[in-house]
Amino acid sequence: MIIPINIESKDSKSYNIHIEPLKKIKIDGKVAIVTNPTVSKFHLKKALESIEANDIEVIEVPDGEEYKNMDTVLSVLDRLFKAKFDRKSTLVALGGGVIGDMTGFCASLYQRGIDFIQMPTTLLAQVDASVGGKTGVNNSYGKNLIGAFYQPKGVYIDPLFLDTLPQREFSAGVAEVIKMAVMFDENFYNFLKEANLNNKEDVIKIIASSVKLKADVVNLDEKESGVRAVLNYGHTFGHVVENLTNYREYLHGEAVAIGMVMANELAVILNLLSQDEADDIRELLAKNSLPTNFEIEDIEEFYQHFFLDKKSQNNSIAFILPNGKIGTNIIKRDIPKEVVLEALYKFKAN
Amino acid sequence: MIIPINIESKDSKSYNIHIEPLKKIKIDGKVAIVTNPTVSKFHLKKALESIEANDIEVIEVPDGEEYKNMDTVLSVLDRLFKAKFDRKSTLVALGGGVIGDMTGFCASLYQRGIDFIQMPTTLLAQVDASVGGKTGVNNSYGKNLIGAFYQPKGVYIDPLFLDTLPQREFSAGVAEVIKMAVMFDENFYNFLKEANLNNKEDVIKIIASSVKLKADVVNLDEKESGVRAVLNYGHTFGHVVENLTNYREYLHGEAVAIGMVMANELAVILNLLSQDEADDIRELLAKNSLPTNFEIEDIEEFYQHFFLDKKSQNNSIAFILPNGKIGTNIIKRDIPKEVVLEALYKFKAN
Repeated sequence: MIIPINIESKDSKSYNIHIEPLKKIKIDGKVAIVTNPTVSKFHLKKALESIEANDIEVIEVPDGEEYKNMDTVLSVLDRLFKAKFDRKSTLVALGGGVIGDMTGFCASLYQRGIDFIQMPTTLLAQVDASVGGKTGVNNSYGKNLIGAFYQPKGVYIDPLFLDTLPQREFSAGVAEVIKMAVMFDENFYNFLKEANLNNKEDVIKIIASSVKLKADVVNLDEKESGVRAVLNYGHTFGHVVENLTNYREYLHGEAVAIGMVMANELAVILNLLSQDEADDIRELLAKNSLPTNFEIEDIEEFYQHFFLDKKSQNNSIAFILPNGKIGTNIIKRDIPKEVVLEALYKFKAN
Repeated sequence: MIIPINIESKDSKSYNIHIEPLKKIKIDGKVAIVTNPTVSKFHLKKALESIEANDIEVIEVPDGEEYKNMDTVLSVLDRLFKAKFDRKSTLVALGGGVIGDMTGFCASLYQRGIDFIQMPTTLLAQVDASVGGKTGVNNSYGKNLIGAFYQPKGVYIDPLFLDTLPQREFSAGVAEVIKMAVMFDENFYNFLKEANLNNKEDVIKIIASSVKLKADVVNLDEKESGVRAVLNYGHTFGHVVENLTNYREYLHGEAVAIGMVMANELAVILNLLSQDEADDIRELLAKNSLPTNFEIEDIEEFYQHFFLDKKSQNNSIAFILPNGKIGTNIIKRDIPKEVVLEALYKFKAN
């Protein structure tokens, strides 16, 4: 299945997202596959076989979010300069979101921009990170604070890559899929309840639906001033959960799952979601091995953590919530503190 | 005078170039003026007076091309994070091309892109660097090898800034002006021959014409795959001159002046320019205190230096030449080596 993406807003690039077992990809000029040792062990051979090019370098960077920084990016650029890459060269990001974000950023920087291709190997990267053109690295002040908006030349999503993905990481990807469904598409949500995630055809359908939904959002709002913020459903609360647990206890998708349950408590209080639907979403998350509980030690402290986030401009927190039912969304600012605290108390009590 | 710029090709941003003594500029959100001690001494006060904002930081970076590197960029970004700049903040580049290139690059990187304003203080930056959206830094492999295409929100060219510019730097800017005229506009070339550069009105006209010509080119070809290459007239030879003299002997514009004289020798041999016109251009350069001679020690060595340049893809050198007369241009590839050597011998003999 090939989904054409046309980012129309700010950058007229268009490209295709291929969702199918990898086929031959012909690339002119030099190619560097950027990956890490973990991914390389499972998938490098297949990637090398699929790429037809005269000159292919493999650049391995250390595995882990803690290496998603400028030092790693500069070391990759240095390898490219040493190997005399030019403006017609291409980078291939083979790995999860960290590899994709850093490789895209390297491509954007090298001689002011060369082509890059996404070859995402985790479900999370396949449904989320590979669409939208956000690239970048973390620094001591926070996540993704240095980067660029830069679109790939193409995205190749091979569902067979997922066969070696640990179950926990797969589930973390499902959390983002559920997020898309709750925000944008009730039919898709209902399909998710019936789908069999051990069946490749169902997985391909799920990836395709998520990618299409995300592409629509990105087309409307490439640079995240408006509707793109809706993709942060579950993230406002989830970031606090990640922060309070020092990014160690939960995978990002797991924290988002908890965050969605919290957001739904708030939505129920505000009459934006029925209790039945909130319970239904919680059940779907749990069925997919995602956490739906979190021990809030101090509710006031939890609340204060909202204001550490870079997205909280001018001390108003944007809460992304369903807007009456599953498949709809609204961005609520200026919800009174006591209402948010009430939702947190209710979450804690459950 | 206000010249509206609409970069239509790859990035739909449009902005205005103001060519007039600085007026009030109102900016919402935090502002950082990035400058260096040399420029700051002469112009910071005026810049601060013109900018209306609630919160203005001044960030000074060391003066000189040798500090145009990632270390300086990262130190500026660090200052911005410390001062809690957010996505609604604005950078102001107050200085020459180095400051403009680095500040624009910082703006492109900070939280994936914030606004920036160009306030160029040298003639070269006013006519050349402030239009086109090229930002970036040098590294050990060469100049401008890491960067981004990123457009400013506005450009404020105050011709009074030039009053403190050393004569030699002013002339270096004139070289790029003459380049634009020879490539694109015979009438403008003739005006340059008559103009009085001690007269502010003539200077404003010259800046405006150069900016308009460059904007036209950039609109046609933002990312330098086609016609934008024509802006490199004089640069193919000039870069070798800079390289052979370790970037110490000549200002960039001076090397470009020598490079244009060399290119014109080649154009005369290829019947693309009359000897009279070549002599006329040389005379105009000399009249503006620009060098038109260079002692080539080893012609073969000079020729080999073409192939060190990042723009020499696949070992074919692109020579940018007049195309029959002043005001026209052509990109010639595959000129036989012996013809280029002949031009260099002819240049050496003069």
